[in-house]
Amino acid sequence: MTAQNIDARALRDAFGAFPTGVTVVTAQDHAGLPIGFTANSFTSVSLDPPLLLVCLAKTSRNFATMTSAKHFAINVLSEAQKDISNTFARPVEDRFATVEWDAGADGCPILADVAAWFECGMEQVIDAGDHVILMGRIASFHNSGRNGLGYARGGYFTPILASKAVSAATEGNIELGAVLERDGEILLLGEDIFALPSCEGREGSPTEILCDYLQELTGLSVTIGFLYSVYEGKSDGKHHIVYRAFTSQGEPREGRFFKPDALTKTRFKTSATADIVARFALESQIGNFGVYFGDETSGTVRPVSTKVARA
Amino acid sequence: MTAQNIDARALRDAFGAFPTGVTVVTAQDHAGLPIGFTANSFTSVSLDPPLLLVCLAKTSRNFATMTSAKHFAINVLSEAQKDISNTFARPVEDRFATVEWDAGADGCPILADVAAWFECGMEQVIDAGDHVILMGRIASFHNSGRNGLGYARGGYFTPILASKAVSAATEGNIELGAVLERDGEILLLGEDIFALPSCEGREGSPTEILCDYLQELTGLSVTIGFLYSVYEGKSDGKHHIVYRAFTSQGEPREGRFFKPDALTKTRFKTSATADIVARFALESQIGNFGVYFGDETSGTVRPVSTKVARA
Repeated sequence: MTAQNIDARALRDAFGAFPTGVTVVTAQDHAGLPIGFTANSFTSVSLDPPLLLVCLAKTSRNFATMTSAKHFAINVLSEAQKDISNTFARPVEDRFATVEWDAGADGCPILADVAAWFECGMEQVIDAGDHVILMGRIASFHNSGRNGLGYARGGYFTPILASKAVSAATEGNIELGAVLERDGEILLLGEDIFALPSCEGREGSPTEILCDYLQELTGLSVTIGFLYSVYEGKSDGKHHIVYRAFTSQGEPREGRFFKPDALTKTRFKTSATADIVARFALESQIGNFGVYFGDETSGTVRPVSTKVARA
Repeated sequence: MTAQNIDARALRDAFGAFPTGVTVVTAQDHAGLPIGFTANSFTSVSLDPPLLLVCLAKTSRNFATMTSAKHFAINVLSEAQKDISNTFARPVEDRFATVEWDAGADGCPILADVAAWFECGMEQVIDAGDHVILMGRIASFHNSGRNGLGYARGGYFTPILASKAVSAATEGNIELGAVLERDGEILLLGEDIFALPSCEGREGSPTEILCDYLQELTGLSVTIGFLYSVYEGKSDGKHHIVYRAFTSQGEPREGRFFKPDALTKTRFKTSATADIVARFALESQIGNFGVYFGDETSGTVRPVSTKVARA
């Protein structure tokens, strides 16, 4: 794809190929109230002097406050803090109501149990297309040693989940499932009652087994991504290991692709499937409007009350 | 830790709490020859206009060439390209000799089989402490759909390895091992012949089982990180699942911490252990001098010929 015809959606998807952590950027507004938003467009910059940067969308409702702030903090979320990432990426009335936090030396909210935090003086605000770059000079920081929450191709990943999958595998009786995406849509099987594509686990590489199954099922070329969910099925007693999977072109031989927000009234084979689809709907909305752009935007995102599925 | 006494090593370790992908930044030098270096200090910036940035150390031997380049490319490495990351982070004579690549429309080397690539015009070079920020305007890009190679707290992580661990677990007969780090040193057990700490796997969370074992063994507080290695032991026929683990304070009740480069003449219990320690030595050197600083530096890093251990 070349400059003459750069498609914003395709570019955003390509940016998503670079895995990142997730941060919550915080500051005090003019009234002394805490503000914060989820961003993954963060990078360390310099050790001496100690500098870092994060990108902020010009459409952000925090734009004026953030760009005039004298201080801000970067909270690098830990792997158990997916809910905090979601909260600070959505238009929630009081984002700080449900998190534990304390003010840093310069008054910026420092969230509890993060992987690391950095409190900065604002060094420079640099204009950069539809975003600005906030460059901060680190005044104080802390490294907790916790694992960071990861984010890649529009979804979270964590070391914990890999450990749960290994644990499930040691117990046997495995079912391998897939959240198979194509351009933000998800593949479901069935006519009235829908299910995710899945196959029985056996000895050998689970991602190869699942990839072969999905390619045979759909006739499409498939890539398996990070783990999405690991749970024990209430009805079948099986250990379900669900991966993210991606395909890009063609019509599937079996099943159909659905926009996740068109599935609110759909019936699913199990409540676990319903949870996974609801979570996919929630997180792809955040992927579109939140985390990836480095901020929630001022767009007309409606509050999402969907319960987040089990991890 | 506050500004008055910011320790560069502690700050770098705290920066490492934010997981990232790994890129190889490439350009043509004045003679038309390809240049390139490994960097993880990359972030997407803007969709319209399409902008990205990467940080480059002022001490880099590519500094003059890169800052005067009219074009550069970002190659987002895929999960199978750890060796390429290592090659472009070390002082190798001809880094392009061992990789497949092609010139992009603007002459920048595009590596084969990456997760995504972006070829950019140089938009701006921004001074930022001991680094500069290279901001690029994307002229063309490609997204292959492959999983990106991940990097966190000084080590790589990949979805493939998690899949291998699940596969090993389905076959049973598991041994859980740890590369336990403290300030860049590694814990080994034994007097003349050394081994990594390890315990038998059983049903339940492998990271909890391993964490309990390590804390009991050392009397120290331990965090388990990403998977490090999965292999079948030649001598014991067991499936070894090795995690990275971290501890920060105190003397261990059993075992000793060693600097990895002090272990070249050490005898190990198995060749797999020797491979893991050699890989740790190689990668912690890169962590110090390469990937993390966003470039190899002009420092006196000696070429490392150590064979990289199996993943």
